[in-house]
Amino acid sequence: MRIAQIAPLYERVPPLMYGGTERVVSYLTEELVRLGHDVTLFASGDSITAARLRAPCALAARLDTSCKDPLARHILMLGAVYEHAEEFDIIHCHTDYLCLPLARLAPAPTLLTLHGRLDMPELGPLYAAYADIPLVSISDEQRTPLPKANWVATIYHGLPDLYRYTPQSGRYLLFLGRISPEKRPDTAIRVAQRAGIPLRIAAKVDPVDVDYFENEIRPLLDDPLIELVGEVGEEGKNELLGGALALLFPIDWPEPFGLVMIESLACGTPVIARPRGSVSEVIRHGETGWVCESEDEMVAAVQRIGEIERAACRAAFERQFTVETMARRYLDVYEAVRVARRVPRAQPAVSDKLLSADDLYDHQAAASADTP
Amino acid sequence: MRIAQIAPLYERVPPLMYGGTERVVSYLTEELVRLGHDVTLFASGDSITAARLRAPCALAARLDTSCKDPLARHILMLGAVYEHAEEFDIIHCHTDYLCLPLARLAPAPTLLTLHGRLDMPELGPLYAAYADIPLVSISDEQRTPLPKANWVATIYHGLPDLYRYTPQSGRYLLFLGRISPEKRPDTAIRVAQRAGIPLRIAAKVDPVDVDYFENEIRPLLDDPLIELVGEVGEEGKNELLGGALALLFPIDWPEPFGLVMIESLACGTPVIARPRGSVSEVIRHGETGWVCESEDEMVAAVQRIGEIERAACRAAFERQFTVETMARRYLDVYEAVRVARRVPRAQPAVSDKLLSADDLYDHQAAASADTP
Repeated sequence: MRIAQIAPLYERVPPLMYGGTERVVSYLTEELVRLGHDVTLFASGDSITAARLRAPCALAARLDTSCKDPLARHILMLGAVYEHAEEFDIIHCHTDYLCLPLARLAPAPTLLTLHGRLDMPELGPLYAAYADIPLVSISDEQRTPLPKANWVATIYHGLPDLYRYTPQSGRYLLFLGRISPEKRPDTAIRVAQRAGIPLRIAAKVDPVDVDYFENEIRPLLDDPLIELVGEVGEEGKNELLGGALALLFPIDWPEPFGLVMIESLACGTPVIARPRGSVSEVIRHGETGWVCESEDEMVAAVQRIGEIERAACRAAFERQFTVETMARRYLDVYEAVRVARRVPRAQPAVSDKLLSADDLYDHQAAASADTP
Repeated sequence: MRIAQIAPLYERVPPLMYGGTERVVSYLTEELVRLGHDVTLFASGDSITAARLRAPCALAARLDTSCKDPLARHILMLGAVYEHAEEFDIIHCHTDYLCLPLARLAPAPTLLTLHGRLDMPELGPLYAAYADIPLVSISDEQRTPLPKANWVATIYHGLPDLYRYTPQSGRYLLFLGRISPEKRPDTAIRVAQRAGIPLRIAAKVDPVDVDYFENEIRPLLDDPLIELVGEVGEEGKNELLGGALALLFPIDWPEPFGLVMIESLACGTPVIARPRGSVSEVIRHGETGWVCESEDEMVAAVQRIGEIERAACRAAFERQFTVETMARRYLDVYEAVRVARRVPRAQPAVSDKLLSADDLYDHQAAASADTP
């Protein structure tokens, strides 16, 4: 199949360090190439891929100090994709809604995977106007703010064979990711202290979170149980995850998909997580970890972590969260979208969704109905 | 002619207070309706117009506390415009580069007026890729960062008959606009103090400029010569401008067009301005004001302000900066663009401007050549 993959331009594909969307686009792209498809990857010029690379810029925006207007780069890229849409059997876009008007006008079908949270009030009217463009969610929970959008599948992220299964853990808990209020590192620290088990924090602090780190987290680090190890690369992550008794993932925001959970399962390490966003879809309570609301429950979960078999965690990963599974599911959806496209049907006109001067209030009501 | 006017969605059209682009779109739209054209205005739903109004949202973004993602609204609007492009003879867009990929694919021609500064490095490659889309600048100076873009005209802003000519001024200088570092209110204050003439400051302070105001400007206000009158509406502006000896416009940034300069001329009030951006195109040194680099020169210019005839200022306004002149020039360009569109020609393909993995450095060289 002739497939276009359209990545965001903030990180290279794959990213050097952080950057969930670009990383998943990379995994999917390389797997599709391995399966023999003709893949063109639209991404920043420093990306590394076995696919044909087409780049609107030399460097990814976050590494490029000269970048002032990343949106302009995205517009340049999308224009190039859709001007030659007939060269593709499917255009798979990962850059949110920017492609919608072009997708409607193009001769080839677009599939749009939404990677972010969807609770902005503007998104209801926009996706309602483009109800003919098929959407993929990365968890069922992600759909909550937009239940009426044109969802055709939920496809969980998948990982290539990067993480080693580690049958025997060490004796520490792990917090991995960003230090930010919605990730709740403070909860992780208190749970470890109360359970009396060492905690390693392998996390970066973004500039926007420096105040939070200095005021809320640093005062909690003065305890020999708590060790801050900073940001780690792939190999360090593998070792840290593999050696951990459990990953603590006490998030307090509706994270559409938490990649670190499936990295943990790949190493055989169970996950103790708060039920937000995709958590209850990814972690099976009592089988691959414990899903807990309160700190009391999390402390109890740490004490019962021996009840979770590490082999069961790895098995769940292999069953649900490999890149092979993800790519196979996407290929099924690509095929379904192409077949559906061959059946002509009435498309709702975008301009029908715009307001004339008389119906502002109907519009507001409709918008708020879709975004509670 | 069937004309679509596409406004930004940040302010209503016309804006309640500040908002240069939306104000100019309003003046142009109303004048085109008055001339008998069939005009559709795409703008926020609270806009007030004699044209047909089509709105992707009820309220302009800056007044709408529920607005989280204005870009999504712009994408919805542009999709609606271009899905029915065949209903228009010309699509006149004022929302920067967002429309470019759609404009290329549309059956009706687009004319794009650029209202902002253009010195972001991403804009060179983008406008080079869309060299077939005609662009209008709002001053010649605005083109400096992108000399090779597809400019077809410079059309200065024009005002409707809102401002009364005031033959006899009072005895004060005026600073009108925003209090921000690049507008240099500090220069205006020092010039007034050294000239020994009262200064009225009719200006708003945006949240981003509060620190600048408190630290740099408030300490200068403790002088009976200097009076801060806050933000004013249209009628207050008219009186303040008409009564002023001169408008001080000591900007220190390349402002593409300073509407307040032509508002001042409409009242017959000369302008003392630093030669940045459009200043030297709008103000004729010695005829409608004084164009000065240094504070010394500005102080001298205040002392020589009697040499400028107020009637000459008004005459310059009537000759160059009325809405009739602006609309007539746009209609000429609309017609020229339609005629040019009928002649088929090879379009440079956008994807020719994208990088394959081998030519990153060529691309960087090309980009930097256009953006010195």
